[in-house]
Amino acid sequence: MGRVTERRKVLRIRDGAVSTRPDTLVAEEPLEIRLNGKPLAITMRTPGDDFALAAGFLVSEGVLATAYDLQNIVYCAGATVDGSNTYNVVDVRTAPDVALPDFTLERNVYTSSSCGLCGKASLDAVRTTARFPIADTPPVRVTPGLLASLPERLRAAQRVFDRTGGLHAAALFTEDGELLDIREDVGRHNAVDKLVGRALQNGGLPLSRTVLLVSGRASFELAQKAVMAGIPVLAAVSAPSSLAVDLAAETGLTLVGFLRGSSMNVYAGEDRIALQDAAAQG
Amino acid sequence: MGRVTERRKVLRIRDGAVSTRPDTLVAEEPLEIRLNGKPLAITMRTPGDDFALAAGFLVSEGVLATAYDLQNIVYCAGATVDGSNTYNVVDVRTAPDVALPDFTLERNVYTSSSCGLCGKASLDAVRTTARFPIADTPPVRVTPGLLASLPERLRAAQRVFDRTGGLHAAALFTEDGELLDIREDVGRHNAVDKLVGRALQNGGLPLSRTVLLVSGRASFELAQKAVMAGIPVLAAVSAPSSLAVDLAAETGLTLVGFLRGSSMNVYAGEDRIALQDAAAQG
Repeated sequence: MGRVTERRKVLRIRDGAVSTRPDTLVAEEPLEIRLNGKPLAITMRTPGDDFALAAGFLVSEGVLATAYDLQNIVYCAGATVDGSNTYNVVDVRTAPDVALPDFTLERNVYTSSSCGLCGKASLDAVRTTARFPIADTPPVRVTPGLLASLPERLRAAQRVFDRTGGLHAAALFTEDGELLDIREDVGRHNAVDKLVGRALQNGGLPLSRTVLLVSGRASFELAQKAVMAGIPVLAAVSAPSSLAVDLAAETGLTLVGFLRGSSMNVYAGEDRIALQDAAAQG
Repeated sequence: MGRVTERRKVLRIRDGAVSTRPDTLVAEEPLEIRLNGKPLAITMRTPGDDFALAAGFLVSEGVLATAYDLQNIVYCAGATVDGSNTYNVVDVRTAPDVALPDFTLERNVYTSSSCGLCGKASLDAVRTTARFPIADTPPVRVTPGLLASLPERLRAAQRVFDRTGGLHAAALFTEDGELLDIREDVGRHNAVDKLVGRALQNGGLPLSRTVLLVSGRASFELAQKAVMAGIPVLAAVSAPSSLAVDLAAETGLTLVGFLRGSSMNVYAGEDRIALQDAAAQG
């Protein structure tokens, strides 16, 4: 509760030099928002200000408009099997005269949320629903030099980004750096879903010998999508979250972040990075 | 269907010079994904590759793993009152032996999705659920110079960003440029929800005389959150989507994008920008 950052060990590669050091990551944990006891939404958030987050979400949804509409907000204990409070479930109680919307559309992106909502449960949910092991035999091995070359090739292949500046991109490469597919979308998760969906339609799952590159940050949900598609290497141009790193470490996914120029951080699955070649490649 | 970009007229301010020109925006439209006829999720996406997007989403959710799991995907006609096809609702039919997950958590971020899912319906939903008009009387007037000063002040006030590179930030300023509040989160919507929720808890809604600055792009959902909180000016460091611009134009929200250095684009609500001061401020 309230942890805005977390520390993880990272393998840092800078111009061929390799070092291990602690790195500060933004904390990411699920938050379930309940409205008068009824589950309404789950969002992946940075812990802290959770009551404000829940209240603000309900302003956006048209449920709350004044402080009088809000009776109180509490953390729900007992969401886990052992009855402990994860501080990841809040219940918003509205004043008696507040009209409640008709929430008719069902959605659940966490299939085992009943076991208690916390980072650990989110990891377990992915592990238990994963249909493919990340089973690259022999293991995929990529050099830092190959990884460093991918962002420029992503940008070169992006058709729309230069015109609008508003698109996220995701690209699939072979372990040899061949571009297999690229998708763009206003939503970064959608770009990855489009890549994975194409692969499914073409009979290409699991994507056992590929590298997935995303143009932005590596969130838990992006790491989840890589794991579910059997992708062994996820590389992001920007920062990963704590929960993305934890998921990668638990499932055997190689997670690379801050892939810029000849520099990168390896947060998990270092065995797929061909480090002996790093110095040679400069 | 399939429109990846859209054109809108934009007021461009560069170093005090003002011009009007067409601008290319990334297209954003809602997509409802149904599973065997049952509504499952709504995502805001760039149209195109919708079947792949739906299939990939269901791979991530653990429903689909091979091409054989997928019977077919169709666009649903008849989602609108007049029975027309918006190409914004897809139904994924699974093979008979596919085990379906137990989707127990309900969520609906579009309270009037029953009227047909399209960009227009999304705009109408916000307009009909808005609790506050954007009623700044007399109208808020901000100079380009004041707007240009905000991103640097946001960065200066961000406590966590420099350490992790993984946080989105949102800040509220008075019309005179005074910083009221700043929130950071791994999710950009959450940062705005936290700001708005704090304001609700403090009896501060509607936020009639404020400027909301976000560190990234301006999506439909961010514009929706500004409108629902009665915020008259939304400024983004990066690009807006087509639907964010449309919502701003319909509701009277001033929407500024690409706020960098002394340059910015004004996409809607130009009347709140004190242009006569632009040249003088250089």
